[in-house]
Amino acid sequence: MMKHVTGARCLKCARLWPAKPSLTTCPDCGGLLDIEYDYDAIRWELNRNTLSARRELSMWRYLEFLPVEGIGRRPRLRVGWSPLYEAEGLARKLGLSRLFIKDDGVNPTASLKDRASAMAVVKAEEAGAEVIACSSTGNAASSLAGNAAAAGFPTYIFVPSRAPKGKVAQLMIFGAHVISVDSSYEDTFKLSQQAIERYGWYNRNAAINPFLMEGKKTVALEIAEQLGWHMPDFVALSVGDGCTIAGVWKGLKDLHATGLIDRLPRLLSVQAEGCCPLNRAIAENKPWEPMEENTLADSIAVGVPRNADKALRAIRESHGVVVNVSDQEILDAAKLLGRTCGVFGEPAGVAGTAGVKKAVEKGLIPAEASVVSIVTGNGLKDTPNAIRAAGEPVRIGPSMDELLAVMERL
Amino acid sequence: MMKHVTGARCLKCARLWPAKPSLTTCPDCGGLLDIEYDYDAIRWELNRNTLSARRELSMWRYLEFLPVEGIGRRPRLRVGWSPLYEAEGLARKLGLSRLFIKDDGVNPTASLKDRASAMAVVKAEEAGAEVIACSSTGNAASSLAGNAAAAGFPTYIFVPSRAPKGKVAQLMIFGAHVISVDSSYEDTFKLSQQAIERYGWYNRNAAINPFLMEGKKTVALEIAEQLGWHMPDFVALSVGDGCTIAGVWKGLKDLHATGLIDRLPRLLSVQAEGCCPLNRAIAENKPWEPMEENTLADSIAVGVPRNADKALRAIRESHGVVVNVSDQEILDAAKLLGRTCGVFGEPAGVAGTAGVKKAVEKGLIPAEASVVSIVTGNGLKDTPNAIRAAGEPVRIGPSMDELLAVMERL
Repeated sequence: MMKHVTGARCLKCARLWPAKPSLTTCPDCGGLLDIEYDYDAIRWELNRNTLSARRELSMWRYLEFLPVEGIGRRPRLRVGWSPLYEAEGLARKLGLSRLFIKDDGVNPTASLKDRASAMAVVKAEEAGAEVIACSSTGNAASSLAGNAAAAGFPTYIFVPSRAPKGKVAQLMIFGAHVISVDSSYEDTFKLSQQAIERYGWYNRNAAINPFLMEGKKTVALEIAEQLGWHMPDFVALSVGDGCTIAGVWKGLKDLHATGLIDRLPRLLSVQAEGCCPLNRAIAENKPWEPMEENTLADSIAVGVPRNADKALRAIRESHGVVVNVSDQEILDAAKLLGRTCGVFGEPAGVAGTAGVKKAVEKGLIPAEASVVSIVTGNGLKDTPNAIRAAGEPVRIGPSMDELLAVMERL
Repeated sequence: MMKHVTGARCLKCARLWPAKPSLTTCPDCGGLLDIEYDYDAIRWELNRNTLSARRELSMWRYLEFLPVEGIGRRPRLRVGWSPLYEAEGLARKLGLSRLFIKDDGVNPTASLKDRASAMAVVKAEEAGAEVIACSSTGNAASSLAGNAAAAGFPTYIFVPSRAPKGKVAQLMIFGAHVISVDSSYEDTFKLSQQAIERYGWYNRNAAINPFLMEGKKTVALEIAEQLGWHMPDFVALSVGDGCTIAGVWKGLKDLHATGLIDRLPRLLSVQAEGCCPLNRAIAENKPWEPMEENTLADSIAVGVPRNADKALRAIRESHGVVVNVSDQEILDAAKLLGRTCGVFGEPAGVAGTAGVKKAVEKGLIPAEASVVSIVTGNGLKDTPNAIRAAGEPVRIGPSMDELLAVMERL
């Protein structure tokens, strides 16, 4: 809670600012900010036993680790505490010792982004805002629209026109004012920033708003608790803007700083071959450079990652591994996860698992390792790509003869 | 658990049979069967306090009320314990005292049917089956495919070819053998029955398999516990085959028989105007007759309801209310739920809420009543109808001038 927050520190100039609800980037130098806590105070209030006795089964279970006064007075959706499945069959198939799938696609608007949006809604209430806005490749948008609708906030939302139908349908149903921009995510983001400044809306652009990463980090807190505080060797996830991997790392470091876990996993950063500016920077040990957005995994098709600094720092600090996957490998992973685990992820959602497979094959992850792979969004958001991955069903007339003919072939 | 099960009683001839895992209809007369329990024994083991101390947050929380030996040894998805939201804003809009939304669209395969499919998988394991099969308008199919995939069971699944893309995509991703039948649900169902007999598959057709309703009833057990055992005046839901409303009623009666609740709510049975054989039977107090399947709400487009007897009995026993809604009223309800609650339901999923609105308007539900409305499936399963309900977004180029022009209009 806010009483544990010591401030927001600039990544560039290291200055510490008071953590006001409407804070975005560093007022001095424009750098990204990181929320800091008094970890000794948290350690004093919280341990494994106090946590395990809690009945709140949502991201707000970890209130001491969150930069809020409370959870607000408005109605809210139940976000977080998504299931963590041990995937024995899939682990065997991939030649891995242990593999766990964290299915964040069962969140209320069906993606991990609900964690950031739920945080945005609480902070907007604290800031006394009347309207919330963001730009997004899709999931941040639909999650903001849904969480804000539950809380009674109007929203203005900017999406690139390539956003999949499923996500756009959500936005419209949730009553958001949607502006579909006929251009790249980069242009969409810039236009939203101009509009937010002009109209004074609350800014839910994840990279710019330091509180949102604090919402996202709850996925890491849950993983730790669900594994009984025995950390895996790797946490794998797909990377676009960089906010989620940075959030996961922040969560892990927070847990480590309070002694709730005694070792830190390494991150596996998975990007699409057609759009991997962050992984390229790591692999070549150079500053990142913009790339085109050539992948069907729309949520991670981010040529100009807005949270590059935090993401690169997270991967490096964790002694992380990077791997890029092709669109075909992503589609194959969707089928593999569905068939072996009963988990249906969108392309960006399963890219992390595609990366685990590839990293094992390439020897980047050893066979004896334990891995948690986060599925960040539900496959129902992008039906056409699911059909592309898995094909169409056999179609027959209502007759036993036609069925028998089909059964012969199967 | 099985030790509390006294048998399976035929609805027609009242004979009591041993509750074998592979049981379907009455071996004597072909009537539908109902699982019966020793409620005194359950009452002895279970009370509000023992339940509230449980950490299992899924449908298996209520093991004493379920006809299983245990939860099986195979991996499983986390089904149930879906959120119950108080919808204050929507209640005001509808002129109702209190309204709660039970969002079953956040289940692993995004519909209430996961409750029945999870049960089917456990019973198939108990029966020593190797393959599970069903026919379905879509949700039972995709939930069986997903839950069976997690548990390692192959599936054969029959769907009418009109099933929405989202549901078919799930089936294919989960690796089911899918047979898409170019005909009505009725013909699809019959073909599946013939194939199940011929190949000896485990039968997950909900009306035929008496155990599945026991899975579905868990939604009612959860509602009761989530409301602190204070029952609402009405429980509203959409009705197709009739299994879900029958399951809800079974759950409520089970709770009542063990003294966990002291009064029974009335059921609000909502069907589509274009396909309402059960509601028509109630309204006209006549036996039900087949109807055409004229509604966009595919999950309740059931002209020949397979569970008519149990459904009609449930509505009558509860002194229930019936109301039919038009496709436009269903689409309007989707928008209304999205805008006021942040809950996105598929057409059949929101039909219950459409019915609540209409029942209040018609004076069938008094303004001072409290109502729980069950949203049975996620709107992401049927994106085209969501777009039809809510429209397309405004599309502009990446320029502030174009945005300003749009803002003037909004």
